[in-house]
Amino acid sequence: MSINISPQLSPTEDAVLYEDKNHKVVYLGTKGIDKGSVDVLSYLLVDNGEAILIDPGGYYLFPHMVQKVSKYVTLDQVKFLYFCHQDPDVCGSIPMWKDVCPQAKIAIGELWVRFLPHFGVEDIEGSVFPIPAEGTTLPVGKFHVEVIPAHYLHSPNHFSLYDPVSKFLFSGDIGIALGNFNYLVVNDWVSHLDYLYTPHRILMANNKALRAWLSKVRKLDIEAILPQHGAVIPKNSVEYFFKFLENLKCGTDLISI
Amino acid sequence: MSINISPQLSPTEDAVLYEDKNHKVVYLGTKGIDKGSVDVLSYLLVDNGEAILIDPGGYYLFPHMVQKVSKYVTLDQVKFLYFCHQDPDVCGSIPMWKDVCPQAKIAIGELWVRFLPHFGVEDIEGSVFPIPAEGTTLPVGKFHVEVIPAHYLHSPNHFSLYDPVSKFLFSGDIGIALGNFNYLVVNDWVSHLDYLYTPHRILMANNKALRAWLSKVRKLDIEAILPQHGAVIPKNSVEYFFKFLENLKCGTDLISI
Repeated sequence: MSINISPQLSPTEDAVLYEDKNHKVVYLGTKGIDKGSVDVLSYLLVDNGEAILIDPGGYYLFPHMVQKVSKYVTLDQVKFLYFCHQDPDVCGSIPMWKDVCPQAKIAIGELWVRFLPHFGVEDIEGSVFPIPAEGTTLPVGKFHVEVIPAHYLHSPNHFSLYDPVSKFLFSGDIGIALGNFNYLVVNDWVSHLDYLYTPHRILMANNKALRAWLSKVRKLDIEAILPQHGAVIPKNSVEYFFKFLENLKCGTDLISI
Repeated sequence: MSINISPQLSPTEDAVLYEDKNHKVVYLGTKGIDKGSVDVLSYLLVDNGEAILIDPGGYYLFPHMVQKVSKYVTLDQVKFLYFCHQDPDVCGSIPMWKDVCPQAKIAIGELWVRFLPHFGVEDIEGSVFPIPAEGTTLPVGKFHVEVIPAHYLHSPNHFSLYDPVSKFLFSGDIGIALGNFNYLVVNDWVSHLDYLYTPHRILMANNKALRAWLSKVRKLDIEAILPQHGAVIPKNSVEYFFKFLENLKCGTDLISI
């Protein structure tokens, strides 16, 4: 078993973050691919020959992603295309992924299923795995990935994923960091706070929603938090991150009427 | 001057809802076009030869929309392509609209500008009119359309539009109604509540956000509320609707930790 969550990792290169004989988690080197748009972090999880692609990203990311995913699995090994919520930076490539992985189930919050055709996806009904509001598990290889509600953070029907093998928490938009930094893994927590603060204040609905999510994820044994934007939060910073969220006033907390 | 907000209007046919010598508001007959997806209501506002297209909708709606818009204006008269927020049911057609209306400015909340390339839009920077969080006005013909903050309802950067000529409030997702009904204009308020209740409870972030919006729009002289989903709320039901929102517990109000 080997965990590779190192501050030396490049955000523009794919890297295996966890590996054992039957299980692998890969970062797909997605940062900086599409210069004009907000950066995304996409991941691939493989267990015993079955894969889940986590947050495939926008339209222009697709060629890069197909090339990277194909380094690690054949496309017919992809069992789930998972989307933490409905935004274009997560789902913009969905019509092409549906074409190249026709066997894969599109896993997304049930609220958003009928919104997906608006991306240009045909016959969504037969391909979808609607995630219920209370969460679920997704069978990948010999394990189940846990799907944890993260509603209103920011989407009304948003989820995080927990992999019980690597102990990685794929947090979706929670943990988003924006700004001019060039690392994949947080090394200096205090300086990273500058990149976390503003997007969390704007995007996250309020402190109550954050605490509801914390009440679920604090029970987990976590090796690293892997958000969909920003940088990976390693084990030694996880409790700092949770404290930051626990005390943050954000979203509707900041509205005065 | 003529207002045409009648319960006899068909949701599947385009109709002029307001008209005077220099000003026109058109419903574009968008309900039911794309069977597999959530229905949208799209509108065109024209003043003195300049137009704003309000919430163009998803990918598959585009051919219908181009045909309908072209009945009322030439495509080079479209000055603004307005998107109340970033979801695919609002923005999925954005790459094609940018191609056929290269002169038009894409008006969307500033938070979402860098998310738009993920729909497959190129060179967004030169085409965009970023709406600041506090709202703005958009000059169309001889008037200004008012852009009113509607944050967290549901999107963190979501807006409503007010047309001071027709006195129509284009409310975006607020007023969403889902279910098996077949009218464009609400006639029976009590039965319409059944279609409003569940989507508002799930999508709207909380009662505080609703009250913040109400504190802005209650100052306006409103002839009708035109949401992006559901049905138009005529003048005689506007205060019922505001009372419904004022008292609604929704979103994070319903979370228990």
